[in-house]
Amino acid sequence: MMRKGIFITGTDTDVGKTFISAGLFNYFCLKGYDAGIMKPVQSGCPELEGKLIAPDIEFSLELAGKRFSEEKRLLMAPYKYKLACSPHLAAEIEKTGHPDSDYILNCFDKLASSYSPIIVEGAGGILVPINKNEKMLDLMKKLDIPVILVARTALGTINHTLLSLKALSDAGLTTLGIIFNNTFPAAEQDDYIIKENIKFIEREANIKVLGVVDYLPDIASDKSKAAEVFKTCVNCTDIELLYNEYLGRQTQNNTQNVLRSDDIKYLWHPYTDIKNFERTTFPIIKHGKGIFLYDTEGKKYFDGISSWWCVNFGHSRHELIEAIKEQSASLQHSILGGISHPEAIQLSKKLAKITPEGLNHAFYASDGSSATEAALKIALQYWCNIGVTNRTKFICLEDGYHGDTLGAIGVGYVETFHKNFKPAVKESYRALSPNCADCPFKKEASTCNIECFTSMEELIIQHHSSVAAVIVEPLCQGAAGIRIYPEEYLRRLAKLCNQYEILLIADEIAVGFCRTGSMFACDRAGISPDIMLLGKGLTGGYLPMSAVMVTDTIYNSFRNNDGNDRTFYHGHTFSGNPITSHLAIAALTLYKDLNILEMIQPKIKQLKNGMEEIGKLLNNSYVSTLGMIASVHLNKESGGASRAKRIKEEALSNNLIVRPLGNTIYLWPPLISTENELNEMLSLLKDAVKKTI
Amino acid sequence: MMRKGIFITGTDTDVGKTFISAGLFNYFCLKGYDAGIMKPVQSGCPELEGKLIAPDIEFSLELAGKRFSEEKRLLMAPYKYKLACSPHLAAEIEKTGHPDSDYILNCFDKLASSYSPIIVEGAGGILVPINKNEKMLDLMKKLDIPVILVARTALGTINHTLLSLKALSDAGLTTLGIIFNNTFPAAEQDDYIIKENIKFIEREANIKVLGVVDYLPDIASDKSKAAEVFKTCVNCTDIELLYNEYLGRQTQNNTQNVLRSDDIKYLWHPYTDIKNFERTTFPIIKHGKGIFLYDTEGKKYFDGISSWWCVNFGHSRHELIEAIKEQSASLQHSILGGISHPEAIQLSKKLAKITPEGLNHAFYASDGSSATEAALKIALQYWCNIGVTNRTKFICLEDGYHGDTLGAIGVGYVETFHKNFKPAVKESYRALSPNCADCPFKKEASTCNIECFTSMEELIIQHHSSVAAVIVEPLCQGAAGIRIYPEEYLRRLAKLCNQYEILLIADEIAVGFCRTGSMFACDRAGISPDIMLLGKGLTGGYLPMSAVMVTDTIYNSFRNNDGNDRTFYHGHTFSGNPITSHLAIAALTLYKDLNILEMIQPKIKQLKNGMEEIGKLLNNSYVSTLGMIASVHLNKESGGASRAKRIKEEALSNNLIVRPLGNTIYLWPPLISTENELNEMLSLLKDAVKKTI
Repeated sequence: MMRKGIFITGTDTDVGKTFISAGLFNYFCLKGYDAGIMKPVQSGCPELEGKLIAPDIEFSLELAGKRFSEEKRLLMAPYKYKLACSPHLAAEIEKTGHPDSDYILNCFDKLASSYSPIIVEGAGGILVPINKNEKMLDLMKKLDIPVILVARTALGTINHTLLSLKALSDAGLTTLGIIFNNTFPAAEQDDYIIKENIKFIEREANIKVLGVVDYLPDIASDKSKAAEVFKTCVNCTDIELLYNEYLGRQTQNNTQNVLRSDDIKYLWHPYTDIKNFERTTFPIIKHGKGIFLYDTEGKKYFDGISSWWCVNFGHSRHELIEAIKEQSASLQHSILGGISHPEAIQLSKKLAKITPEGLNHAFYASDGSSATEAALKIALQYWCNIGVTNRTKFICLEDGYHGDTLGAIGVGYVETFHKNFKPAVKESYRALSPNCADCPFKKEASTCNIECFTSMEELIIQHHSSVAAVIVEPLCQGAAGIRIYPEEYLRRLAKLCNQYEILLIADEIAVGFCRTGSMFACDRAGISPDIMLLGKGLTGGYLPMSAVMVTDTIYNSFRNNDGNDRTFYHGHTFSGNPITSHLAIAALTLYKDLNILEMIQPKIKQLKNGMEEIGKLLNNSYVSTLGMIASVHLNKESGGASRAKRIKEEALSNNLIVRPLGNTIYLWPPLISTENELNEMLSLLKDAVKKTI
Repeated sequence: MMRKGIFITGTDTDVGKTFISAGLFNYFCLKGYDAGIMKPVQSGCPELEGKLIAPDIEFSLELAGKRFSEEKRLLMAPYKYKLACSPHLAAEIEKTGHPDSDYILNCFDKLASSYSPIIVEGAGGILVPINKNEKMLDLMKKLDIPVILVARTALGTINHTLLSLKALSDAGLTTLGIIFNNTFPAAEQDDYIIKENIKFIEREANIKVLGVVDYLPDIASDKSKAAEVFKTCVNCTDIELLYNEYLGRQTQNNTQNVLRSDDIKYLWHPYTDIKNFERTTFPIIKHGKGIFLYDTEGKKYFDGISSWWCVNFGHSRHELIEAIKEQSASLQHSILGGISHPEAIQLSKKLAKITPEGLNHAFYASDGSSATEAALKIALQYWCNIGVTNRTKFICLEDGYHGDTLGAIGVGYVETFHKNFKPAVKESYRALSPNCADCPFKKEASTCNIECFTSMEELIIQHHSSVAAVIVEPLCQGAAGIRIYPEEYLRRLAKLCNQYEILLIADEIAVGFCRTGSMFACDRAGISPDIMLLGKGLTGGYLPMSAVMVTDTIYNSFRNNDGNDRTFYHGHTFSGNPITSHLAIAALTLYKDLNILEMIQPKIKQLKNGMEEIGKLLNNSYVSTLGMIASVHLNKESGGASRAKRIKEEALSNNLIVRPLGNTIYLWPPLISTENELNEMLSLLKDAVKKTI
């Protein structure tokens, strides 16, 4: 529960807390607040008609010209003592019981149901005892409201003030500022010294001085004079502002705390170690703009991985937002089963135009994995369609990754990811991964003869008659740890698939749409696969959509030419959803209109150079880059996976989001990153690397 | 290519076509059009300085006060003959060659590069021959521009006019209207008869009369008088309007044709027989509102299947559109791997509150299939997490459907859908489907003892130690053909799963969110599964999102409590996407705010009664309903699957979208359908059924 009020405490007794409390109470009342006032513990109370009167409260109410019922006034001053001494002592002597902080809280909360803010005036300094166990500071902590410290201008104020501020801060309380009260006639003090002391405290404690009150010989007798002086000497506007800012922060903190705790209670994060996650102060992202994400506290993060390799145009790109809004206003969803809509049609045409030659037909899903699954099934049914019934297996790469559904796992097996699911998976033939960072043939990528291809070649030659398709991530095996491999590998593969009439499925979900420096990775290698998978950047990374592009040959085999049912009994509710289609059309337009391919060419070099610099900090690490992808593989000497994890944590505390893959640290920045932004990301990553040395 | 012009033809020669052409040409010029004029074939041309002059063109140009170059005038009157007879005859006699329609088109197109519209004046009536093979009508068809027919007022006009209009219509040409020319002095005609004839033609041919021109003794000599009369007698504003409306329709048709052809070329439709699809004039849906979808021609369709069982609030629901727009403006995407965002957190909390007790943790995907896959993997890893390594199989129902990815196929096998993919699928144990429409025990659902459960029971008893989970669609096996089964089946299943410690996965993707008359189908049966799948209606059916809800027991097994890595290495790029999450929150709010559950109760009865009425039209068919789902199963006697298909086609031509599942016809209307709308849908379906008798 968040309490609303300001606690007026002092460095000492008789520093003029009452004057300040009354003045503030009056100010808030005049500004239209239903303000309240409270003096939880008052000693030195006069007796009137058998009842003790709390003089400070009476003063405040008179100053503000307010009247309250007897009942309310009992809540405002719950503990009153005759003796003018420390409350715990007065209580003992008067045998009326010590002040009870819980009862005081109770009174505050009752008042708080009608009044806000409540100006609470302490008694004496913050370490004045109020009962056997508690001091005034304990009550303050329980109330948990911000504090204004009233200090003398007289000699000794530096010490008392700094001591008080430290104690308040140690107790976790927020001090809005200090007000200095000149409690002595001017003649008795040196004006210059007073000013210097105040300056020193302000600077030393980094605290705001909210007022310096002139000496007032008799404030009690002339209330209007007192109000006048208060108005002149105390910066009430600032106090109001600071108080409201504090409330804002608290509300936000409250929201954040609730969000954090709800997150842990209800949300299961993908690819996240739950126990470890719960321990960290993970960012809760509230909005995004350009290459930046901002959390609920307003903290800014560099999106170094394009939010899982997809926000190619950064966040909140105007044209893409407009596309979503536009389509949302007219047709949100309509199915593609047996009927159609213009958005899916136009998107398909555009995709047919930009994908490698021959890929003319688009089939849609939402998750990347679902696109893989559709592709595998298309390949299987294609062979059945043309009367070949024994082509039922797939060839894939070791450590390939094509998604997490069970069929996708079957053609891409990252041991760490999938070991629990083996019994539910149909295995495929797995060729050696082209792993240049750790080449089993001890070759260099720039000079090798693609020795690793032999493994693929052998599998194809041996099993081709039972193989429906080969599936690969062209040029870069992403989840395996950004394994970038030569174009020649792809060319040989395409040739061999062609020779043995095996379908080639190129999974461009991660590497498509300019990432490699060409529109598609296949374009770089100059090959045209039979099936191509698209996703992620397809919608600029704003909404889920994936696509499977196929050739005429494949598509036509699904047209019922011979009277047999060739329907592809496959689909998802939201296949080709109008909003995501319209968004994708806008994204495709942006790739072209922004001339992304040309724009990124100098950035590609910059990223390469930058990552090579970082590599130099890591002994024997292996740097590899491709287009707007730059990675460094940490071998054992440079700290491996555990070092990579620490680098990630350091980067995050530097506000750079990266996510290592095993022992690989990489940058996969939004394609629209400027030269400066890239430099900043590289420099933050370098910094994080240095901190882990 | 779309040509822009108006063809002025006549019921006869000398009906005053030139006067009308000239007047219209003048009107369009005055209105600021760069209009053109053309007389493709002109006979009776005087010779001037060795060149033939086309008198009709000269008249028009003079009337409009326009001058054109010699070159342009050659295009305007490409075929000129001296003799005043039928062009083909003049050509033969003068030996100057027959008019060539292609050359005329060519002249038109050249003129069209500078002028629009072009007023084309015919020669004689529409069946006048222009060459050996073609008549004027053939040229008109090639030009394909709208026509104005000029008719006499004199006796015989009814016959000639109706004959001409029919021939124009048969040729596929659009006639904008008729203009009557009084070619005889008033004295020679009976005014009353003229008026009655005109009225008769107007009514009989349902054609607009665009003018009745008074008799003009000599129009050629007094151009300004002619212009004056034309202005008074011909409704040019209407002509302009009709012409522009025609252009609008043509443009739209053109767009539609392009869309249709692009669709067939580039877009692969899920669950659609390609060859058959290409033959139909499938609707291309442009926008949606409420329970209606509208195609590019503005045709309205009842969405009888809620766009594949998902648009529960109908189309273009204000609150949902606003939710999409709102979130799109601030954070479009941010991942859930290791970081978080408020939308996914808040959605998860809301889902935990509304789902059956114990389901407290939400994991997200986009496709329904992907949710199934995640659930299967969660079940597999759960057992590994708690040290049980042999629970690797699943039990499902025959003809179950949980999506089309290979893992999902493994637990739900609809023979027609999946026969091609068998080799790539890991089979599960399949219990008998509770198929009440065709009960193998010949029992009635209302009185049976769930004899079909025995099959499930036996599988569980026999295989429980190797089974990770049982997965079912609670209360209604959707894709199997809307097989609605008793709650008691579910209760027994839940009890048995509990007894044998098998996880129960309830796939509520289709039936969740009020569809069955309760928030979830499991609620109806009073059971709480270990895992629940959500999708479709989760976002009100506007954007792809799916969720897997799990119990604390399952979730906690994934928290690394023992130092072992328990991370669920599974996820999709767009898991818990902020826009879809925010949209889902808005949808959940709507289910509550609109009080959907209460609102649909009377509709449920209405739907049931209505479908029972329809069932009566179909011999021995089986009607079964559950909440807002109503189906009729056509057995062989009532026509089976082929009849169902015909009913679907009839319904579509009645503007009701339904999609049979095999021999089952059903309605799955948006939950916000009004009583009237439901009645209309039921009546359209009834109508379609009747038409197929």
